[in-house]
Amino acid sequence: MTFSYTQLFTFTEAVFRSMGCPDDHATLATETLLSADLRGVDSHGVARLVGYVRLWEAGRINARPRVGVTYETPSTAVVDGDGGLGLVVGPKAMRVALEKAREVGSGWVSVKNSNHFGIAGYHAMLALAHDMIGVAMTNASPLVAPTYSLERLLGTNPIAVAVPAGEQPDFVLDMATTTAANGKLEIAQRKSLPIPGGWAQDAEGHPSTDANAVKNGGALQPLGGETGSHKGYGLGAVVDIFSAVLSGANYGPWVPPFVAFLQPSANPVGQGLGHFFGAMRVDAFRPADEFKAHMDNWITTFRQARAVEGQQVLIPGDPERETAAKRLLDGITLLEPVVKDLEGLGKKFGVAL
Amino acid sequence: MTFSYTQLFTFTEAVFRSMGCPDDHATLATETLLSADLRGVDSHGVARLVGYVRLWEAGRINARPRVGVTYETPSTAVVDGDGGLGLVVGPKAMRVALEKAREVGSGWVSVKNSNHFGIAGYHAMLALAHDMIGVAMTNASPLVAPTYSLERLLGTNPIAVAVPAGEQPDFVLDMATTTAANGKLEIAQRKSLPIPGGWAQDAEGHPSTDANAVKNGGALQPLGGETGSHKGYGLGAVVDIFSAVLSGANYGPWVPPFVAFLQPSANPVGQGLGHFFGAMRVDAFRPADEFKAHMDNWITTFRQARAVEGQQVLIPGDPERETAAKRLLDGITLLEPVVKDLEGLGKKFGVAL
Repeated sequence: MTFSYTQLFTFTEAVFRSMGCPDDHATLATETLLSADLRGVDSHGVARLVGYVRLWEAGRINARPRVGVTYETPSTAVVDGDGGLGLVVGPKAMRVALEKAREVGSGWVSVKNSNHFGIAGYHAMLALAHDMIGVAMTNASPLVAPTYSLERLLGTNPIAVAVPAGEQPDFVLDMATTTAANGKLEIAQRKSLPIPGGWAQDAEGHPSTDANAVKNGGALQPLGGETGSHKGYGLGAVVDIFSAVLSGANYGPWVPPFVAFLQPSANPVGQGLGHFFGAMRVDAFRPADEFKAHMDNWITTFRQARAVEGQQVLIPGDPERETAAKRLLDGITLLEPVVKDLEGLGKKFGVAL
Repeated sequence: MTFSYTQLFTFTEAVFRSMGCPDDHATLATETLLSADLRGVDSHGVARLVGYVRLWEAGRINARPRVGVTYETPSTAVVDGDGGLGLVVGPKAMRVALEKAREVGSGWVSVKNSNHFGIAGYHAMLALAHDMIGVAMTNASPLVAPTYSLERLLGTNPIAVAVPAGEQPDFVLDMATTTAANGKLEIAQRKSLPIPGGWAQDAEGHPSTDANAVKNGGALQPLGGETGSHKGYGLGAVVDIFSAVLSGANYGPWVPPFVAFLQPSANPVGQGLGHFFGAMRVDAFRPADEFKAHMDNWITTFRQARAVEGQQVLIPGDPERETAAKRLLDGITLLEPVVKDLEGLGKKFGVAL
């Protein structure tokens, strides 16, 4: 079934309001969440709305958080999310980074006591309108085994970097530090297909092509797969440290699970989960027009490179931007189970889809 | 043949002085260069000394650079390396980042007009003694094809992140954004062995297991290999943009080659090659003792994880630290061709090895 962006926006906003979110929070959370559906990251969008509601019902999300800075220097801060939706805490913390960058050239904010914040790219992109480079990271429920580990100690811990260009569309990298997202395994499970090597390992730590490997006690593998997973592990570790050891959030195996049926650790090492945001004014390094002219040259050089037959070299962010343009016009198609979940939420809160 | 660290230090310092480097630059360049040999990154250490000398002979390295800040805000700067050795420019630029971090919490420095800076990890580690997190990146001669590209547009563009701990040894990630370094291909070439999938592609862009693929018009593949190379490409791109588009150095295919027999572009888009450095005081986020206690807990948790039979989970930096301790005691073994090169340099400059 296909819905217009506006239709999903109105519905989602109403659900967040029904949870008790103040109006401005409900609007902000909706914009953050639906940026995933627009950009084609279906696993992180409205399909997760029911998950947020369940966490709220379990008392693990504060619908009316007082998000604030608890520690700071001119270029850095720790923000306490007060147990709020990451969808709200994220943009508010990013705003602190942007403000610091405006004042001293760059701003770096580590966040504790938050929850899942949607797609990392959305937060990084908030910098673009200010002619700034944006950086966003988050830790997440442990699903990933470091190289040689049988235990899941890291989340898919994404890194996003958004860089403004001039005439060309902006550069937006948004990547998990695993070879594949868990959502891709779930698709293979549904279709009973094997998965490529390098995605997952089984419970004994052997590389596996079984789409059910993670479900059955295995783990996702860090980016690099069989020949370089120590690099993906290292990157995921940096995300965990910047997001949580700097801020005082939970890290590693202590990161609270997104699903309400799994309990958070009884002995947490911090508060909630953690994010890390950065903003750098490009004119803190050279005049903005000079920077943008060279970014345009960078982008066109890469895009025009000779390519493998039938393919072309893409710039990070190209596919998502094209999907967003298309979905704004043509609407967003949701899978049947997702629509069922949304209808259930509609009934629960008396909101029409 | 095996040499003590001191022996190689004295010799290398004398060679740099013979090039005309001021005494303090010669010492600094030697320390930076030999940190690679100590840490087991043999491809980036004294084996490259002859390469630096050839570049100097070709007039492409300025032995007496005036390294200075050309643009700045309280938390950011651009440093002009004045065509100097990256081995000298790097630590001087990192010092600017450390000083800014001392004053406003964090410091971020993009560098133009530099040359190869040795191993990224050395520069990032300069932050550790100040209870700061260090970040170092550099672009490099184009050897890597972005996903779908037939052209080499990026270098192996490494990222290093060093994080101080308390009782535990520090966390030091230092990784190229390719699956494998070019040095590993050269080893396979010498032994006439095939290379694993995901390392390289041939001139037509097909995945190749031929160790000569890159030599014969192919390219290194970004981290992630056949199933996720767009992620390694994206990371390498961020390194290139932060190091060169921010600073005004050459980027992408314009990065000058390290080898003297290849000429730099006749139409450069910037000056020399570029680096990017960052420093964040950990106590710009939370009290340093708190941070370090949690880093210790992070490290021991990961190190003690249940592991695949016969293996253990390593912390980034573990292998290099152990190698350095061993080589300081037992000396550094060099391959015969490297010793020959050094003997040649000794003769040229009248310096005993």
